[in-house]
Amino acid sequence: MHKYERANQAEVPLDRARRYLEPGPVVLVSSEHEGERNLMTMGWHMILSFTPSLFGCLISAGNHSFELVRKSRECVINVPTTALTDEVVGIGNSSGREIDKFTHFNLTPEPSDKITTPGVRECYANFECRLLDDSMIERHNFFLFEIVAGRAATTPEYPETLHYTGDGVFMVAGEIIDRHQQFLPQML
Amino acid sequence: MHKYERANQAEVPLDRARRYLEPGPVVLVSSEHEGERNLMTMGWHMILSFTPSLFGCLISAGNHSFELVRKSRECVINVPTTALTDEVVGIGNSSGREIDKFTHFNLTPEPSDKITTPGVRECYANFECRLLDDSMIERHNFFLFEIVAGRAATTPEYPETLHYTGDGVFMVAGEIIDRHQQFLPQML
Repeated sequence: MHKYERANQAEVPLDRARRYLEPGPVVLVSSEHEGERNLMTMGWHMILSFTPSLFGCLISAGNHSFELVRKSRECVINVPTTALTDEVVGIGNSSGREIDKFTHFNLTPEPSDKITTPGVRECYANFECRLLDDSMIERHNFFLFEIVAGRAATTPEYPETLHYTGDGVFMVAGEIIDRHQQFLPQML
Repeated sequence: MHKYERANQAEVPLDRARRYLEPGPVVLVSSEHEGERNLMTMGWHMILSFTPSLFGCLISAGNHSFELVRKSRECVINVPTTALTDEVVGIGNSSGREIDKFTHFNLTPEPSDKITTPGVRECYANFECRLLDDSMIERHNFFLFEIVAGRAATTPEYPETLHYTGDGVFMVAGEIIDRHQQFLPQML
């Protein structure tokens, strides 16, 4: 059981956030507004740009996190590994209206560098996000953020992440295929 | 080397497309407009809704596929497995301005059921998409599609898919963690 602490993390250059998010792992979204905080398990997200570092995701209006993020205009995207599978499942199957998920799941709020919302210390990587464009929230529940700070554990180099398929089943990404030498320099 | 043919595929109910796309695999986007066709490797995409079945992705204005998709207002999202790693890398490192990628990479255009654009027969799954909302293309190169037909191979149940990290390195998802029994019925 490997959990990660900030001491083992290094800063991630903003244009390298894709390294951790583009593979499509389930993430934990932490939110806070006027003293209320929450955690949410999320699989519907994508990178939209390297520079600025843009990240889009869907938070349903029915989720407790929706109003916290919409009002505070920020969140932290935390990347868990398989070490946190129980927490990922538990957070996805409970509501912040009924419990404080940090306390309930014994996760540690880690102060952020650039925003007020704390991250989750036990996650492999954390990306601090500010809402950049709210024009798609009303119609599609789509939030477009700018990543303003990022940090990630330095070992293992490629963590085992969880990728949700629905039906309670996750695929695990771990093994690596390196085709660096087949890429054109401008494509790297 | 397992490649897939349509004979081995079954129809995917539209609200189950997430099963194949939510884990975040690299996909091949096929496009066609006025007799011109292309293929593109893409990792920036997400599911946005079950019903209707909505899929969003980023196609940079600099890509040859951008105008083909924008004008035809459709595409097919094809999910390759590790059996097509060479093709995925090759397609991502070449331009449709210079070669016909179907021919060059020896991939078979498979007629679609609901749209004009063909899919890629050798891929594990294929999702036919119609452009639903073009309002975010100008500002963010973000295309929002409705999936109007889907099919997927029936074996293996969970294919090995490629998840791009940048730098020419892919993570492979294959192993499964099944936590079905820990989920609330309404969360499945």
